[in-house]
Amino acid sequence: MTSTLTLFVDHLSQPCRALSLLCRTIKVQHHEKYVQLIKGEHLRQPFAELTPFRKIPVVQDGNLLILESCAALRYIADKYDTSNQWYPKPPSVRAKVDEYLDWQHTNTRAHGVGYFTNKVLFPFLKKTPPDLKAISEHSKELDRVEKQFTSYFLGPRPFITGDSPTIADLVAACEFEQPLAGGHQLSPPVMEFLGRVKSVIGPEYEDLHNVVRKFANKVLS
Amino acid sequence: MTSTLTLFVDHLSQPCRALSLLCRTIKVQHHEKYVQLIKGEHLRQPFAELTPFRKIPVVQDGNLLILESCAALRYIADKYDTSNQWYPKPPSVRAKVDEYLDWQHTNTRAHGVGYFTNKVLFPFLKKTPPDLKAISEHSKELDRVEKQFTSYFLGPRPFITGDSPTIADLVAACEFEQPLAGGHQLSPPVMEFLGRVKSVIGPEYEDLHNVVRKFANKVLS
Repeated sequence: MTSTLTLFVDHLSQPCRALSLLCRTIKVQHHEKYVQLIKGEHLRQPFAELTPFRKIPVVQDGNLLILESCAALRYIADKYDTSNQWYPKPPSVRAKVDEYLDWQHTNTRAHGVGYFTNKVLFPFLKKTPPDLKAISEHSKELDRVEKQFTSYFLGPRPFITGDSPTIADLVAACEFEQPLAGGHQLSPPVMEFLGRVKSVIGPEYEDLHNVVRKFANKVLS
Repeated sequence: MTSTLTLFVDHLSQPCRALSLLCRTIKVQHHEKYVQLIKGEHLRQPFAELTPFRKIPVVQDGNLLILESCAALRYIADKYDTSNQWYPKPPSVRAKVDEYLDWQHTNTRAHGVGYFTNKVLFPFLKKTPPDLKAISEHSKELDRVEKQFTSYFLGPRPFITGDSPTIADLVAACEFEQPLAGGHQLSPPVMEFLGRVKSVIGPEYEDLHNVVRKFANKVLS
């Protein structure tokens, strides 16, 4: 069978890493097409005709196009993860996965992106000095996010829903890695959480995160 | 059977209206406990001990607590909607529902809340004049959101996934009604969409939206 599942990704991007890591971990046959953000390939043809939002990741499965990463993670895990580990089917467990995926948009993601963009991406793209006030504000918000993530979403559990990671943990890890690559100091419980996700995923976790770490190191050096 | 499904809501809030309308429409037995935002009841005991985020809605079902409205809508529709209309089970249809629910956090919701807060809520709570610059920026973003909602999410269909509304349409309608109540002029296709959602839901739609309309009219008059 030829796979029709295609991911349009650049591993500099957090949700792109989450999608690639899910597909590689559950070993679903898929293609990864690279759309280089730094070169602006997401803004131009042929990629731009796929999506009015001109953002990656985009997931294509046959005739189905999904332009939002959390929706795509849910879809892929639900359809292709035969272990049912990554998006568990019991409604009360699934609700906790969804709860984190909804919460993180305006929390982990918003402030991780805010920190990284002002610290690394804008200085690289615009050749301007980093916006120290914005960086400080996002860093402070990240401290709050880390506390709420640790106390409410993890609680006493190794992962959000218990002993095994789900797509919510994968999204959390990939998002937390971004400000970490930019120099934000994550709290010890969040660092330990990242270690647990990494130990489940294996070497692919480091391979993909090294893309953003190397880029950030180059800009910040 | 005594229902254990409880919604903590105030119908001034968009996601609270979406939750109440879903439960009333699918006729699941539930309790609605009112937490008055204007009186700050969400910030105080007894409600505040339920959630570290001190936000409504909160949904409780037995021992399960859900603090995010889209996660709660998915859970309730999946578990209690015997018609399977509101959160359809086929993965490719469900992906389109999820796609809108993910997108709207930083689009429809972000700018609808931004518009309403600066136009109505802050002037009421802080007794300050409305922030015209912020209102104008959110209004402009809402124009873009309306165009993308109409062209991409609806396309030629009456509702996001076809001929019947899902929780994605319900969330969209409840969010668009908020800036509308505050005086933002929605585009004709979005107004027609609201009419379609209203005609499916019936009189409860007007009853719940009149709560925010009356409040906004009082503040703006």
